[in-house]
Amino acid sequence: MDSDLRAAVLQLKRDHIVAAAVEIFHEQGFVHTTLDQLAMALGVSKPFIYNHFRSKQELLAVICAQGISDSNVAIDRALARQGTARERLSLFTHDFLLAVLGKRRQLAIYTREETCLTSGDRSAIQRQRREFDHKLRRLLEQGVAGGEFRIPDVRVAALAVGGVASWACSWYREGGRLSPEAVARQMTTLVLAMAAGGTVSLPPRAKTPGYLLV
Amino acid sequence: MDSDLRAAVLQLKRDHIVAAAVEIFHEQGFVHTTLDQLAMALGVSKPFIYNHFRSKQELLAVICAQGISDSNVAIDRALARQGTARERLSLFTHDFLLAVLGKRRQLAIYTREETCLTSGDRSAIQRQRREFDHKLRRLLEQGVAGGEFRIPDVRVAALAVGGVASWACSWYREGGRLSPEAVARQMTTLVLAMAAGGTVSLPPRAKTPGYLLV
Repeated sequence: MDSDLRAAVLQLKRDHIVAAAVEIFHEQGFVHTTLDQLAMALGVSKPFIYNHFRSKQELLAVICAQGISDSNVAIDRALARQGTARERLSLFTHDFLLAVLGKRRQLAIYTREETCLTSGDRSAIQRQRREFDHKLRRLLEQGVAGGEFRIPDVRVAALAVGGVASWACSWYREGGRLSPEAVARQMTTLVLAMAAGGTVSLPPRAKTPGYLLV
Repeated sequence: MDSDLRAAVLQLKRDHIVAAAVEIFHEQGFVHTTLDQLAMALGVSKPFIYNHFRSKQELLAVICAQGISDSNVAIDRALARQGTARERLSLFTHDFLLAVLGKRRQLAIYTREETCLTSGDRSAIQRQRREFDHKLRRLLEQGVAGGEFRIPDVRVAALAVGGVASWACSWYREGGRLSPEAVARQMTTLVLAMAAGGTVSLPPRAKTPGYLLV
């Protein structure tokens, strides 16, 4: 095999193991799952897993990092985009909701099992989360500075937006009334209203007609 | 002892055990905690605990129920109150944030350990949560019907409000920049803007002046 193909096969195997671990950790918890059970679920031997991951904890770290990486992509994309703060917050909120709903099992595992991570892995993920919060605050600050948003405390507002999305992981049910896309659109409307503080989402005021006396 | 005093002493002892269990479950997890450790932390014998609780699981159920009971009080109080929907949503959001921040360790335990509850306890708490969601939707619907709120989907908006509050449990730090009261006030402002959808928090429009030609 050439090295590209070899790398692709390696990645495929890793993805396969991680996907099975997401299922089984989500179902029965990290502590209650053994690598023997994971190997059996995959129909492979335990050494096969050890070829790719040093430990069950390393698998957990990969899963937890997956839970937040798409959200970081969403905020980077919105910050890089030209446009009004409102357009960028709209783009971000939509993508953010799709990111968390798409990774909701990984995020549920992260929430439940964070204390099982090594302190190094835990810090690395927390650092990523802080960066995310920081970037989201920057997006909101730009909107406030430009007069588009009316937000009393940008740090609290960023956490409120985080809450709207993160909580969706816990109530969203596959095959329920709303598609992820529908949830993303609804939440975008709500977040824009929240950021606008009652100023932006109004229809434009009628132009002052020329026949006014004053 | 007369029966009132006896009941009060019993309750005091129960509260004492529950408070210690909250500390220790929150610190080291439900699965990793034994009743022996809890007894040692309390400076009592294990039979003393068994006088009040049948099992570690019963203790967990009491803690999880505590986590949501104040939120139910908050929504009942707001629904019973006279006033505009905006006033009632404001009262509710404020009380709701104080409720979740006050019970954040119990809520963290509930989130982490829900799968450790008996199915009966789990269903009972889920029923309480559904009632809460239902009542919050009713409050929002009243505001929409009265023209105070502009919300495209009341069920999604109720879940967004739930998210703003629930997420606060995970980021709030005691002794940090904001008091629970300050967080409650900030979040109330944001939730009102979200519900208003850009209509209510504006200053009143200027009256149409009499000197308009049309």
